[in-house]
Amino acid sequence: MKIIGEKINGTRKLVGRAIAERDAGYIQNLAKKQVDGGADWLDVNAGTFPDQEPDDLAWLVQIVQDVVDVPLCLDSASPSALRAAMQEVIKTPMINSISGEAASLSAILPIVAEFGCEVIALCMDDRGISDASQGRVEVIHRVFEATRRAGVPDEKVYADPLTLTIATNTKAGRATFETMRSIRAQYPQAHICCGLSNVSLGLPVRPLINRTFLVLALDAGMDTALIDPNDRELQAAMRATDLLLGYDKHCLNYTRAFRTGLLETPKPASG
Amino acid sequence: MKIIGEKINGTRKLVGRAIAERDAGYIQNLAKKQVDGGADWLDVNAGTFPDQEPDDLAWLVQIVQDVVDVPLCLDSASPSALRAAMQEVIKTPMINSISGEAASLSAILPIVAEFGCEVIALCMDDRGISDASQGRVEVIHRVFEATRRAGVPDEKVYADPLTLTIATNTKAGRATFETMRSIRAQYPQAHICCGLSNVSLGLPVRPLINRTFLVLALDAGMDTALIDPNDRELQAAMRATDLLLGYDKHCLNYTRAFRTGLLETPKPASG
Repeated sequence: MKIIGEKINGTRKLVGRAIAERDAGYIQNLAKKQVDGGADWLDVNAGTFPDQEPDDLAWLVQIVQDVVDVPLCLDSASPSALRAAMQEVIKTPMINSISGEAASLSAILPIVAEFGCEVIALCMDDRGISDASQGRVEVIHRVFEATRRAGVPDEKVYADPLTLTIATNTKAGRATFETMRSIRAQYPQAHICCGLSNVSLGLPVRPLINRTFLVLALDAGMDTALIDPNDRELQAAMRATDLLLGYDKHCLNYTRAFRTGLLETPKPASG
Repeated sequence: MKIIGEKINGTRKLVGRAIAERDAGYIQNLAKKQVDGGADWLDVNAGTFPDQEPDDLAWLVQIVQDVVDVPLCLDSASPSALRAAMQEVIKTPMINSISGEAASLSAILPIVAEFGCEVIALCMDDRGISDASQGRVEVIHRVFEATRRAGVPDEKVYADPLTLTIATNTKAGRATFETMRSIRAQYPQAHICCGLSNVSLGLPVRPLINRTFLVLALDAGMDTALIDPNDRELQAAMRATDLLLGYDKHCLNYTRAFRTGLLETPKPASG
């Protein structure tokens, strides 16, 4: 599984403040820590102030690239912010995200195609997110038609089935897993990506639900997750799942993770 | 998911000694603790001394029934031990186990049929355990032919695909999950049962692997597990999986488990 580090997100209070105050050190520390934790991309989200977003996102790209080498995942719905960031990127970034919404396909997809980016494609459109798998699969068919027409190969598309909380609909997990299995079967060259936290909104012991969701999602075909790479229990669950699904040749990744202490939750120091 | 409590097993050193010394209190404590932890059956295994096994198993049945009400799972390959135990049981027990081995089908299956027992059916025969799913499924076909011929309905059969350690064959997990999916599709009335510990033999942090295996096995169709019901992390993983797979209506079991403190690992006391 590959990891998009989720922590540089301007909608989070401390990150938003660091962006407003141009506190590069705070952001760069988040960047380095996530790459040390195994992030393959870093998501960068400059927050939701339309007037500032182009400048803010371009600044984020610059300062993050000063300290880490992984490609970025530009997290914005603003064409002008994305184009501003594109002027600064060193490696071709991923774009987070397009969807079946008309505005997204007309304004964001052309940027993806123009710069040869990878892209997260959400299973939603102008009607919102379908409760059932079938509706989400229908939306992603239309998105793949559009990406192919724009010349974006399937292997650059990271389809995100989306998750809703299980607190109000106990079929929400199954809907996501079924959507993943369907996409995996119909678009074998494409990737499947997902965030974990929506599924547990409003329920207790959310990390347990999120971690278990990760295991089931990997089984359903997910290959990339937008997570906190510094969450040790998530990492441990991911290594064990890769091992059990036969992806870890000679158990090398698992035993290496064990030797670096990643697999056991550190006990609180006594006294 | 239903649970067969695994701890009253005479091949474990302390249990074997308690049986030899007729230490009823030790065994009865294990019985009560497992039922308090949620066991639906208790496995009773008197160890492997052929001359003593009938007396030992009958004694185990008596003393366990004195303190708990759940049905037992008679764990023996000895027809005489099983018949001795049958004289003592109050509730119709499960028998652990039959297999495709000729001796098993000729000597144990008739006891299952005569007493109307439920039975664990292992996917192995006189040639051993097949590495691949296909071989195990072929064996279980022959076992189901035999159980049906003997008048044992499919819903009393708990097919066990068996697990081998992933340490020497990284396809071992997939072989088990594929076997489960195949049995679930072809014998929809039957149950699927499994133990967890073989899969992690020889690897570090075994509870992590066993717990992750449980999640993936539930996803593949397992409905019954032979485990330690007092393992809180296993129980938590099981509740979260039931929740995510849509089996927990209104999230009641999950939130109830949370309120009783089952979902969070207790922190070691400080100081």
